[in-house]
Amino acid sequence: MVFSEFRPLDEKSLVEYIKATPILSSKLGDKFDDLKIKEVGDGNLNFVFIVVNDSGSFVIKQALPYIRCIGESWPMTKERAYFEALVLKEHGRLCPEHVPEVYHFDRTMSLIGMRYLEPPHIILRKGLIAGTEYPLLAEHMSEYMAKTLFFTSLLYLTTTEHKRSVAEFCGNVELCRLTEQVVFSDPYKVSQYNHWTSPYLDRDAEAVREDNVLKVEVAELKSKFCERTQALVHGDLHTGSIMVTHDSTQVIDPEFAFYGPMGFDIGAFIGNLILAFFAQDGHADQVNDRKAYKEWILKTIDDTWTLFYKKFTVLWDAHKDGPGEAYLPGIYNNPELQKLIQAKYMEDLFHDTLGFGSAKMIRRIVGVAHVEDFESIKDAGRRADCERQALEFAKMLLKERRKFKAITEVVSAIKQLQT
Amino acid sequence: MVFSEFRPLDEKSLVEYIKATPILSSKLGDKFDDLKIKEVGDGNLNFVFIVVNDSGSFVIKQALPYIRCIGESWPMTKERAYFEALVLKEHGRLCPEHVPEVYHFDRTMSLIGMRYLEPPHIILRKGLIAGTEYPLLAEHMSEYMAKTLFFTSLLYLTTTEHKRSVAEFCGNVELCRLTEQVVFSDPYKVSQYNHWTSPYLDRDAEAVREDNVLKVEVAELKSKFCERTQALVHGDLHTGSIMVTHDSTQVIDPEFAFYGPMGFDIGAFIGNLILAFFAQDGHADQVNDRKAYKEWILKTIDDTWTLFYKKFTVLWDAHKDGPGEAYLPGIYNNPELQKLIQAKYMEDLFHDTLGFGSAKMIRRIVGVAHVEDFESIKDAGRRADCERQALEFAKMLLKERRKFKAITEVVSAIKQLQT
Ligand SMILES: Nc1ncnc2c1ncn2[C@@H]1O[C@H](COP(=O)(O)OP(=O)(O)O)[C@@H](O)[C@H]1O
Ligand SMILES: Nc1ncnc2c1ncn2[C@@H]1O[C@H](COP(=O)(O)OP(=O)(O)O)[C@@H](O)[C@H]1O
Ligand SMILES: [Mg+2]
Ligand SMILES: [Mg+2]
Ligand SMILES: [Mg+2]
Ligand SMILES: [Mg+2]
Ligand SMILES: [Mg+2]
Repeated sequence: MVFSEFRPLDEKSLVEYIKATPILSSKLGDKFDDLKIKEVGDGNLNFVFIVVNDSGSFVIKQALPYIRCIGESWPMTKERAYFEALVLKEHGRLCPEHVPEVYHFDRTMSLIGMRYLEPPHIILRKGLIAGTEYPLLAEHMSEYMAKTLFFTSLLYLTTTEHKRSVAEFCGNVELCRLTEQVVFSDPYKVSQYNHWTSPYLDRDAEAVREDNVLKVEVAELKSKFCERTQALVHGDLHTGSIMVTHDSTQVIDPEFAFYGPMGFDIGAFIGNLILAFFAQDGHADQVNDRKAYKEWILKTIDDTWTLFYKKFTVLWDAHKDGPGEAYLPGIYNNPELQKLIQAKYMEDLFHDTLGFGSAKMIRRIVGVAHVEDFESIKDAGRRADCERQALEFAKMLLKERRKFKAITEVVSAIKQLQT
Repeated sequence: MVFSEFRPLDEKSLVEYIKATPILSSKLGDKFDDLKIKEVGDGNLNFVFIVVNDSGSFVIKQALPYIRCIGESWPMTKERAYFEALVLKEHGRLCPEHVPEVYHFDRTMSLIGMRYLEPPHIILRKGLIAGTEYPLLAEHMSEYMAKTLFFTSLLYLTTTEHKRSVAEFCGNVELCRLTEQVVFSDPYKVSQYNHWTSPYLDRDAEAVREDNVLKVEVAELKSKFCERTQALVHGDLHTGSIMVTHDSTQVIDPEFAFYGPMGFDIGAFIGNLILAFFAQDGHADQVNDRKAYKEWILKTIDDTWTLFYKKFTVLWDAHKDGPGEAYLPGIYNNPELQKLIQAKYMEDLFHDTLGFGSAKMIRRIVGVAHVEDFESIKDAGRRADCERQALEFAKMLLKERRKFKAITEVVSAIKQLQT
């Protein structure tokens, strides 16, 4: 340990820290004259430094005891870095292709040293705004979700391993509370932090707060979020937590991780793709009407679920005689039964995915933290039109999710709105 | 601490232990010449000593590192005593009228000292076999369940308190595993521990093992048992864990406690009442045809759920502006909405109750541990007839539970079987 007490680092003290940390300084060939350090944290919560010289590079992420984008008036445990490091390592073990390697973790300093995802890696959300296609995105994300969710669930773990891990992640309660507040509570009541494209969406925001049917459904989702320890979920899997190139897809920022419902992750990803879709009309111009791009987004949504379904059930079949204690082979030992239980499991998961995805969409339009997809649409009236479409779709999907039997039906419903 | 290491007590070493434990010896006025000690453990797992003299009394329960009724070949952590003591205290705090007071707990010795439930207290199951009516049973049990389940759920707790408690009870994993095995697994596969009234029920037991629809439903219940941290449940709330007199109802033996679905407790109680009902024909004789008693059992089933529903929702209404974070007053603030969410919550809980109750019935007929209600019917053919009726009813109820909208419909379905 380099510093015996926590202190927030700046570019200067970081050099001192690196010099005193062999695992980090060795990445730089122990040379410090050509060192470049840049703070790039564009996220909401933490500080991120990129450290590069001719010999190597890494990223340093540090959590401070409050929420960065709000300030010290909203305290938040810096222990979140501990859980983030734990999950980067655990999900990295399960799916090394899509999680940056952790080089170093310092609990006192709430500091993680990890692989620098060098350019042309950019945040997926920015790529979606720019209209860039990522042909492997669905393939990679479905792989990441299938592996991390399957292997941390009772389909693979014993009850003993599962409960041990559940207990550990109960410690990340402050971050769970933050999610409860910003996803499941604030959008449905008057809250100082809420905002929206006003005055255009004033009535729409009010309608959300007054929609009893919606609130009953949101309560059900919240109770699953709080009570269902189905798998070790990332907890914040929106398109701002994914860095991409044409060939690479890397999931970062799992500080909200805990044992929760799988659909919370899959829904976050798909819900944010749907937001990206509805934002496209706001990005369209005379050079690019974004029509083809919108088709690509819809295809990516379809592929994500379809591939996830396939990969997840393939893992299940492959490990059905493994350690997992949910469905013992002595009981669920015939192919017909195996088909039945999988169909039921996946149908429930699909409905959870649509529910959580919708809740994530709603909160990005009338809650505290918005998304650049919409925020970058300069004209407020145009932005509000896009947001309203997304909001209406999300409300419908949340309420009617159990009627949807396949992802193609969801895609068709989106398409229909556009005609 | 009296003994520095764990050792199983016998009647002699127990005296030594009491003498060295002021809180216990003072209960006896520090007099030991007129001491009477009797081991009465009729349960499956532990040793229970009744200690009495002229000045006072208590019960000493000690857990050994194996399952008593099987022996050392089935090891089981003696740490279960720690969780039992914890829950006796916590449930006792929430509902002191129906939980015996804990005087002393010694973790090293896995030993609990608690109030002796003096005669005429008897185990409820024995009273049900004898045909004794307990006019306050439904009132008391619904009170116990409403209070212990409500106050340990997110309807009353903050997320922070809830997750802290969930984490603690993850430690009771060995007992959860035992339940998983004996309730949700063994009855549905060939297992060395299973037995049934053979040869009469050979085909029935086989039918359970070959019923795909039943197995799919059991899997859903098991997953709720393993993943849903709804409340601090007793975990073993059958009629052998309740001691009664005409006026008193006391719940003992919560060593299986953990954060699980509320319906697991309510179902255990109601399911075991249904077993008692179906056993009555085996106890009927020329003196007593048990017809009136059967009516009383059905009324008690009806009253239990009806009163539970009432008491639970009264607690909910009374504390809707309290610390609980499931339904924030800022969102669920109008009477219509409050009605909607309660109706939904209670309907789900009702179906869970019927599901878990049925699973508990099935396992008592074709699993490892049977119930005295049936075992005490000497004639095997007669016993098998009673058991088969109970088994058929339980299978139907488990599969069709979502079609039942009220407890009266369950009672009617039982009655119909008898005509
Ligand atoms: N391993 C990395 N490689 C390159 N850039 C990164 C890396 N980790 C984070 N970043 C950059 O820092 C930003 C914030 O990181 P993130 O982990 O999302 O922090 P926060 O928790 O504050 O949202 C990201 O949007 C990305 O631009
Ligand atoms: N507090 C008590 N007062 C009187 N009798 C008790 C008490 N606790 C247990 N017993 C008796 O001991 C038996 C076994 O106790 P129990 O707690 O059910 O143990 P086990 O965990 O082995 O099932 C009970 O059936 C009851 O007859
Ligand atoms: Mg981020
Ligand atoms: Mg973050
Ligand atoms: Mg007992
Ligand atoms: Mg039972
Ligand atoms: Mg017991």
